[in-house]
Amino acid sequence: MGLSTDPTVSAGHGFLLLINGSCRSGVCRQGQHVETPCSAFLRSCRDMRATSRSSSYHRDNYSSHDRISWISDIVVVVSLENIETMKSIIEKYGHKRITVVEGGVTRHRSIFNGLKIFLNSKLSSCPLQKPEVVIIHDAVRPFVEEDILLKVVLAAKEHGAAGAIRPLVSTVVASSVDGSLDHSLERARYRASEMPQAFVFDIIYQAYHQCSDYDLDYGTECLHLALKYCKTNAKLIEGSPDLWKVTYKRDLYAAESIIKDNLSQQVCVTTDMKEDSMQLGFLLHETLKSQVKVKGISVFLCKNDNCLQNILRQCYNFICINAKKSYFQEIQELVDIIENASISVLHPVVLISVYLTASENMSFSNGIEELAGIKEFAREVEKKNVLVYGLLIHYIKDDPKLQETINSAAAIISALIKDRNPELIGQVLVA
Amino acid sequence: MGLSTDPTVSAGHGFLLLINGSCRSGVCRQGQHVETPCSAFLRSCRDMRATSRSSSYHRDNYSSHDRISWISDIVVVVSLENIETMKSIIEKYGHKRITVVEGGVTRHRSIFNGLKIFLNSKLSSCPLQKPEVVIIHDAVRPFVEEDILLKVVLAAKEHGAAGAIRPLVSTVVASSVDGSLDHSLERARYRASEMPQAFVFDIIYQAYHQCSDYDLDYGTECLHLALKYCKTNAKLIEGSPDLWKVTYKRDLYAAESIIKDNLSQQVCVTTDMKEDSMQLGFLLHETLKSQVKVKGISVFLCKNDNCLQNILRQCYNFICINAKKSYFQEIQELVDIIENASISVLHPVVLISVYLTASENMSFSNGIEELAGIKEFAREVEKKNVLVYGLLIHYIKDDPKLQETINSAAAIISALIKDRNPELIGQVLVA
Repeated sequence: MGLSTDPTVSAGHGFLLLINGSCRSGVCRQGQHVETPCSAFLRSCRDMRATSRSSSYHRDNYSSHDRISWISDIVVVVSLENIETMKSIIEKYGHKRITVVEGGVTRHRSIFNGLKIFLNSKLSSCPLQKPEVVIIHDAVRPFVEEDILLKVVLAAKEHGAAGAIRPLVSTVVASSVDGSLDHSLERARYRASEMPQAFVFDIIYQAYHQCSDYDLDYGTECLHLALKYCKTNAKLIEGSPDLWKVTYKRDLYAAESIIKDNLSQQVCVTTDMKEDSMQLGFLLHETLKSQVKVKGISVFLCKNDNCLQNILRQCYNFICINAKKSYFQEIQELVDIIENASISVLHPVVLISVYLTASENMSFSNGIEELAGIKEFAREVEKKNVLVYGLLIHYIKDDPKLQETINSAAAIISALIKDRNPELIGQVLVA
Repeated sequence: MGLSTDPTVSAGHGFLLLINGSCRSGVCRQGQHVETPCSAFLRSCRDMRATSRSSSYHRDNYSSHDRISWISDIVVVVSLENIETMKSIIEKYGHKRITVVEGGVTRHRSIFNGLKIFLNSKLSSCPLQKPEVVIIHDAVRPFVEEDILLKVVLAAKEHGAAGAIRPLVSTVVASSVDGSLDHSLERARYRASEMPQAFVFDIIYQAYHQCSDYDLDYGTECLHLALKYCKTNAKLIEGSPDLWKVTYKRDLYAAESIIKDNLSQQVCVTTDMKEDSMQLGFLLHETLKSQVKVKGISVFLCKNDNCLQNILRQCYNFICINAKKSYFQEIQELVDIIENASISVLHPVVLISVYLTASENMSFSNGIEELAGIKEFAREVEKKNVLVYGLLIHYIKDDPKLQETINSAAAIISALIKDRNPELIGQVLVA
């Protein structure tokens, strides 16, 4: 979807994204640190860029700033004790246009705090302009797609308010005073109200301004406030399953797996100019594509290929094949490129260094011995968020067993990429 | 809780567990094969045993049959095309007292089919006795605890019907005809109705017998039928978060992580009688306990310890330390014990074979070469559901760096146990 060219949401109209990460709901109630959801969310804002990019290799220089340029400001609400952590996360990951605001003791009070800074901004040093529409989102829903943000914004412009909904997974029941079933709701007639929601700024601000202390202390639903105090019937928009709220430990497990899954969609295979390397690189590339469940496009190219620089910026997994003896020089060069392109700032990058040995016996232990230094090297580059693993392949051209070895190598590569396990860095696996 | 001695639920009263795994709800709607939830559920029935066992090492010979003996029969409802698969799963994993019934086209019709076999059993070859209470559960909720089964049964005996509930995670809203918000429900007054539910058999059977085709085709809530047709107000029981329904891909991720987490709670370290092995085993055991997040009790013992046999049956992770040269003989013996104790029938067992080398240089590659056969061996025992990995430790007594090496070994062990990755079997990692 050509967001940046959509006239209805072009930059300058003042669309605000307010992310509530204060410690009053969801995962925070389980005693987790607020850093997790906020950080995950901000990362996912950047991920939108990575996801959309991978659909086309040849779209170039598409910075995250441009990508969500129709959102003019981002306000993150966190509890007092997490403000410094949040600021350091923002600095570390280079997030732009973000203002951090202290939350209140309840969800509604936190959101209200976030909205109030626009009216107080003349008094403070904060130069924020009052937005036309505000998107409210929970930090504990880190996988929101840009598409749904756009939908709620457009609906809010038209209807004054809008919110994402999902079908109910369970039937909802009302209990009587003695803890027995009073009645059950007909599931098809109701929906779960999720986030994001969007509001014309003046509507939601007035709603918060007018609502009672009881609302602020016990209420949770912003759409309800807009209806009750501003007679605004929000438009309900069907959202995707990704909008779920990270609430329980199992949700953290799921979120981790989804992030790893997203990162392992694409593999870049690079080789030196030796014939053996290039042939193996080609075979490995084909096998990864056809046999192993690495979705998306993997790329096979020689290291001095012109388009390497572009591809490097769009990939979190590299397989570096060397027939030469100067192992570390080659992978050090790749690490430098990864570092210069800032790929590993947001997520760990996996770099698998593949070594070829011609015979099964002698070279096996010889190779291993020469590779003993990889552990030290891997520990060093881990500081740059690059996870290095070694992979030894017995490569004998025209060996009838070659494809079997390649299959084994592809399976190991796929496992390393999917697990992204920092405890196994510097290990040399054998295909 | 001493279930088997609880007079109110002792065997013979006729408590039936009806598991609905027919393809009409939850994960099945997403196009997944029904085998997954049913199989997972039946496994988890066995897991209850494993979990409760690990709390006490010295409880012996407590078969799964005895463990849930207060449930007299289990009926599994699956769709026609999955009946044979289900039967083969039941046979493979040695589940007892299970009758497989063909499901209907909707949830209610499937459950009704499951109930009807008791009244048809005189006509068929099925010798099932009509139960006093029936527990209805979804196969897509694989982590149910015995505790909640007991609670709903006891409440159903008293009130005629009972069901597990959970707090709502999201606000529930009703939409008007044009897709706008009509009203939102006050979250605190409502609950999500989950499973398991339990009913006096005659009540739920009468409810199904009397209900309309509309109920059977469009309804989903058994508690509602008992209320509407038998005037039975079910008792609502607070359940744990584990009762969630495996519905989306993220839920499968979460379920996999939870299962792996449960399996990695406990590690058994065995050594031969050599002094080096025993000392290293002790150090590794202490480090695993204190530094790595392996919860629960890990055990350090010599291989010919008397209690090895008992412990073996309660653990899914083994670290086998050998200073001797006859590597495979040692681990082959352990594999045989694991196989004889049927530990790996339900879940893969991780076996990490630790080898000691005295010096960093020569023995390193020598060790590796001698270990080259481990890959072949690992492939062989994988057929028995045992995942074998090798771990090389440079062990120099009184070396000031020894603790560092042990820490590294413990971190690798922990990673291998948690990932349980079949693609990495037969690899030799270096601490």
